[in-house]
Amino acid sequence: MIVEMRTGSTREEIDNVVARAKSMGMKVQLNVGTDRTVVAILGSNTGGLPTDAFAVLPGVESVTRIMKPYKLASRGFKPKDSVVSINGVEVGGRRVVVMAGPCAVESEEQMVASARVVKESGASILRGGAFKPRTSPFNFQGLEEAGLEILARVRKQFAIPVVTEVVDPHDVELVAEYADILQIGSRNMQNFALLSSVGRSKRPVLLKRGFACTVTEWLTAADYLLAEGNNQVILCERGIRTFEDSARFSLDISSIPVIKQFSHLPLIVDPSHAAGHYSLVPAMAKASLAAGADGLLVEVHPNPKGALVDGLQSLTPSDFARLMAELGPFAEAAGRCI
Amino acid sequence: MIVEMRTGSTREEIDNVVARAKSMGMKVQLNVGTDRTVVAILGSNTGGLPTDAFAVLPGVESVTRIMKPYKLASRGFKPKDSVVSINGVEVGGRRVVVMAGPCAVESEEQMVASARVVKESGASILRGGAFKPRTSPFNFQGLEEAGLEILARVRKQFAIPVVTEVVDPHDVELVAEYADILQIGSRNMQNFALLSSVGRSKRPVLLKRGFACTVTEWLTAADYLLAEGNNQVILCERGIRTFEDSARFSLDISSIPVIKQFSHLPLIVDPSHAAGHYSLVPAMAKASLAAGADGLLVEVHPNPKGALVDGLQSLTPSDFARLMAELGPFAEAAGRCI
Amino acid sequence: MIVEMRTGSTREEIDNVVARAKSMGMKVQLNVGTDRTVVAILGSNTGGLPTDAFAVLPGVESVTRIMKPYKLASRGFKPKDSVVSINGVEVGGRRVVVMAGPCAVESEEQMVASARVVKESGASILRGGAFKPRTSPFNFQGLEEAGLEILARVRKQFAIPVVTEVVDPHDVELVAEYADILQIGSRNMQNFALLSSVGRSKRPVLLKRGFACTVTEWLTAADYLLAEGNNQVILCERGIRTFEDSARFSLDISSIPVIKQFSHLPLIVDPSHAAGHYSLVPAMAKASLAAGADGLLVEVHPNPKGALVDGLQSLTPSDFARLMAELGPFAEAAGRCI
Amino acid sequence: MIVEMRTGSTREEIDNVVARAKSMGMKVQLNVGTDRTVVAILGSNTGGLPTDAFAVLPGVESVTRIMKPYKLASRGFKPKDSVVSINGVEVGGRRVVVMAGPCAVESEEQMVASARVVKESGASILRGGAFKPRTSPFNFQGLEEAGLEILARVRKQFAIPVVTEVVDPHDVELVAEYADILQIGSRNMQNFALLSSVGRSKRPVLLKRGFACTVTEWLTAADYLLAEGNNQVILCERGIRTFEDSARFSLDISSIPVIKQFSHLPLIVDPSHAAGHYSLVPAMAKASLAAGADGLLVEVHPNPKGALVDGLQSLTPSDFARLMAELGPFAEAAGRCI
Repeated sequence: MIVEMRTGSTREEIDNVVARAKSMGMKVQLNVGTDRTVVAILGSNTGGLPTDAFAVLPGVESVTRIMKPYKLASRGFKPKDSVVSINGVEVGGRRVVVMAGPCAVESEEQMVASARVVKESGASILRGGAFKPRTSPFNFQGLEEAGLEILARVRKQFAIPVVTEVVDPHDVELVAEYADILQIGSRNMQNFALLSSVGRSKRPVLLKRGFACTVTEWLTAADYLLAEGNNQVILCERGIRTFEDSARFSLDISSIPVIKQFSHLPLIVDPSHAAGHYSLVPAMAKASLAAGADGLLVEVHPNPKGALVDGLQSLTPSDFARLMAELGPFAEAAGRCI
Repeated sequence: MIVEMRTGSTREEIDNVVARAKSMGMKVQLNVGTDRTVVAILGSNTGGLPTDAFAVLPGVESVTRIMKPYKLASRGFKPKDSVVSINGVEVGGRRVVVMAGPCAVESEEQMVASARVVKESGASILRGGAFKPRTSPFNFQGLEEAGLEILARVRKQFAIPVVTEVVDPHDVELVAEYADILQIGSRNMQNFALLSSVGRSKRPVLLKRGFACTVTEWLTAADYLLAEGNNQVILCERGIRTFEDSARFSLDISSIPVIKQFSHLPLIVDPSHAAGHYSLVPAMAKASLAAGADGLLVEVHPNPKGALVDGLQSLTPSDFARLMAELGPFAEAAGRCI
Repeated sequence: MIVEMRTGSTREEIDNVVARAKSMGMKVQLNVGTDRTVVAILGSNTGGLPTDAFAVLPGVESVTRIMKPYKLASRGFKPKDSVVSINGVEVGGRRVVVMAGPCAVESEEQMVASARVVKESGASILRGGAFKPRTSPFNFQGLEEAGLEILARVRKQFAIPVVTEVVDPHDVELVAEYADILQIGSRNMQNFALLSSVGRSKRPVLLKRGFACTVTEWLTAADYLLAEGNNQVILCERGIRTFEDSARFSLDISSIPVIKQFSHLPLIVDPSHAAGHYSLVPAMAKASLAAGADGLLVEVHPNPKGALVDGLQSLTPSDFARLMAELGPFAEAAGRCI
Repeated sequence: MIVEMRTGSTREEIDNVVARAKSMGMKVQLNVGTDRTVVAILGSNTGGLPTDAFAVLPGVESVTRIMKPYKLASRGFKPKDSVVSINGVEVGGRRVVVMAGPCAVESEEQMVASARVVKESGASILRGGAFKPRTSPFNFQGLEEAGLEILARVRKQFAIPVVTEVVDPHDVELVAEYADILQIGSRNMQNFALLSSVGRSKRPVLLKRGFACTVTEWLTAADYLLAEGNNQVILCERGIRTFEDSARFSLDISSIPVIKQFSHLPLIVDPSHAAGHYSLVPAMAKASLAAGADGLLVEVHPNPKGALVDGLQSLTPSDFARLMAELGPFAEAAGRCI
């Protein structure tokens, strides 16, 4: 951590900064410049110190954090790639993993039809939401527990792992009874009560990026899960909010190489929520694999025109089958298989 | 809702759109242009229809929502300003209301000192967080229930109402025993489980704006509270995330006249979290009153240099007293008092 | 264009709107709803009408533009893909085109070394800036005309077309004497004096996206070039400004399928300026081809450590050669060659 | 400037960084931490060094700039407030200055009517654009030189100074013949050819903030003007581009205290372009004065319903007169007069 003093700061003000750093068990080195003094605060865990601890002191101009605030999710902490294994499906290994299905569980027929399409096209995990966080209270909120039961039956019938969202810290046990992967949605990425609860469950978890959160905040949120001893964390990029409105969100494609550089956690991409429109999904899915993603989360619906939620961004079964076939050469070009 | 058909769309495709609208109980009017056909879907509650219901149909180019998706929070629904009354303090009335105190409850001494400053300077509500949503799991998370008990004692001693945050839907009853106003933080604005739970409590609630949510999404989140029959909703603007980094967030000053135009709910502003630095707070507080805010939420700490959380954005007692004195003429210029 | 009247608007106010539309030669259709009236304004060029012309009229609640404001750049205007031919190199054809070289022309030796690398690695166009728009007046501003002369000699020696930036409307003729493609930089995308001047030159032009401009504004800026009769327009996506700071800009990967859907113009991607760091460039280059880009603009420098401008985002010659080899399979997966 | 080396960086890599810094005339101080080494580069002008000069060296993890890149515009360079004097009107003094008028010069009648309103309401400078940078080539582009002549006649008739935009570096002399203040528009804030040309003219200049530029970039752009010896620079905040769409741009209210802290230049605010709608303008104008702005740039039109450009954000004469009256108490509350 670098504390820059103001031009004209007094000896006493500088001593104050040094004293506070030492009281926190840090080492200090002074740089007395022509114009101003810079205090370097050294130690192995300065990433965890609040910058305010120094910024509030008199005579301080600015405080710059050099070390990242996340720790357990960092590649420095664990240099080797993590692989999360779900009933034999490995996320983060050589094979690219596709999770697919409708946005919301609507009925048993719909989920059976979806599972068939997903499996026949070569995807390996089924998605479907029973609890739906909706912007308006007057919209369909999901089938809740009845939806979980449908998921459980379809999962058994097709022998396919299932990922579904949990929205309340007190529903974690319930959802964990039915699902192989617990999904934490974008709007809940900084719902720390939920993160801690899912962390304690020790179940595989898909942590979607908050649509207005930085990569650094995302990895720090992953620390909440890892700090509870849950190492089965999969990250999911799903687009960030920007001024551009030709897609629903802006897929942050460079987050893929950035995450691969700074973290050991596996990372998949949800092109459907980023796009908001089915016609953009194939290009974004291919780009994600080309950039090094470990997998995809894709919305497919047996009948998008009749979907209760997010029909516009869902692929039809035939479009999905075509996309799966087209993804193969891109996975291979990236040194992977599908 | 306006459905624009593609150039060359067929009669059957247009009929499809019309049929779906009618099946939802809507009226329809066709505009057959030289180039393309536009279908206007009419009715008193088209704001609640998902645009996807039409956008997925073949031959549709785009769907534009004319009516806003929120309803209960709108001025159309309730033309007269709402006033929320908390133990005799009215938010949304002629008098501008200042809520002030430290970010986090740290100790009884700290809260007693804070309450004294708040009261003596003329502010009318005491703030202080017992449950703190922190970006990293390794930072101070608040005193939790012990913090609530401190709040309760100070509230009684100084006869001052108290606002504090709730972060878990299952803590609402607990927090409501100690606090006069339940605060929903920025990161939880779209935590719909929490919104519903606080809505059911029927207690006064301070709904902070999500730092990456639009005004429309914010008012739609308020609908979650109002839909449960809780009419005591106070909105709180606290800055949005943008590319500019000279302040922690960008205070959206124009949200004040926008909210006043479109909603009946009272609105206060938190300049401290927007600024991130105490030196910017006074200018932003004055600007908020000038723009028509009904009040302020300001961080003040008896000793900012020793604060466990957000010390840099906290005013000292003397700076706060000076600000309160300076706010008077601005409140009067705005036709209010303080 | 859809004009929504306020609830309670009068007959006279509606008549006013209708009269103004008719005075502009438009057709009108009225939708008298239960709550409010909606006026649809129809005609083949409503995209060119300012929405304010109606929004200012009394009784109007909102005006929504249905047609896009750009015209000549739209796929509706020219359904077939445009191909720009530069001395035998076709941009927008089956072969993916790579333009590469240093950010700034620094010396003849540097450009000769660069041209050798570019050509040997299989790229087909050489880049290099003689006029450099720099954020600070105290930074290196380019060699200007001396730089153009170096470019011209290297271009002849290696028989390779050259792209270089023009920043002043009155330098267009000068730069056009030396360069095969005139580049309009991101900060000049809405410098309409420059756009018109380059348009009149009728030379091939590379129009970079403004880093805070929408796709719609970008295509409308292209209309300035096309309106002067210059059809040789190549678009270049180079990242947009967002809150995320792990890359210099956020590459808007979905702009690729969006542009392909709405415009006939060829589109290349500059991953170097978006990334800001060489380590991110390969992943972003591959993703761009996977998403359907017609080419790339890549910074390569014979000695990045000694570069005067943007060394951190420049690839070394060996990294560039490796990237060119790795791009092949991605181009093929996308049905192209390189 | 702080150069952080990677964990495990070699002695040679560190020596390399030190050698480069010394070759640039800088002093260096090494901080050898437990984990990694940090090199502090000291000197009075490190703000002007490109960070890339060090970031490209092997073994470097990150480079952090401590000093700001702008120099002449900084308060460190000139601690006392600058005041720009235009024919007796002082911008940056105790009196708040209001510049007002229509967006575009349309006719002599319109400008005469505008000047009358502006003067009678107590504003002191007349605005009006003769060269209009418009998003689409098919929109009205301004009356150009004929517009300047109208401005000149009205300026003489009413003895009121005039501010108007210049868009081409080669029109600066022409425009300077007619106008008292040259305006550089938001889209041209980083048009460095234009900045240099206006700088050389030594005429008072109004530098609007680029709608996607940081405060730091804005002050660095001002350095282009100041570096040419033009000290008569007035800054103008006019809103930044964000995700929020209830106003046309988001007025960055906190830029006012930030600029006042870091720069000596006077600063006015344009609430009209930020708002995009006349109904929001008064609240934003009042907030700007409350936050410490030195003046306002307001659009007023004798007949907004007939305006050729931006009618929706223009005030009517009576609304403007009312606003001017209402601003008085806010200016006084801020310790100013109007």
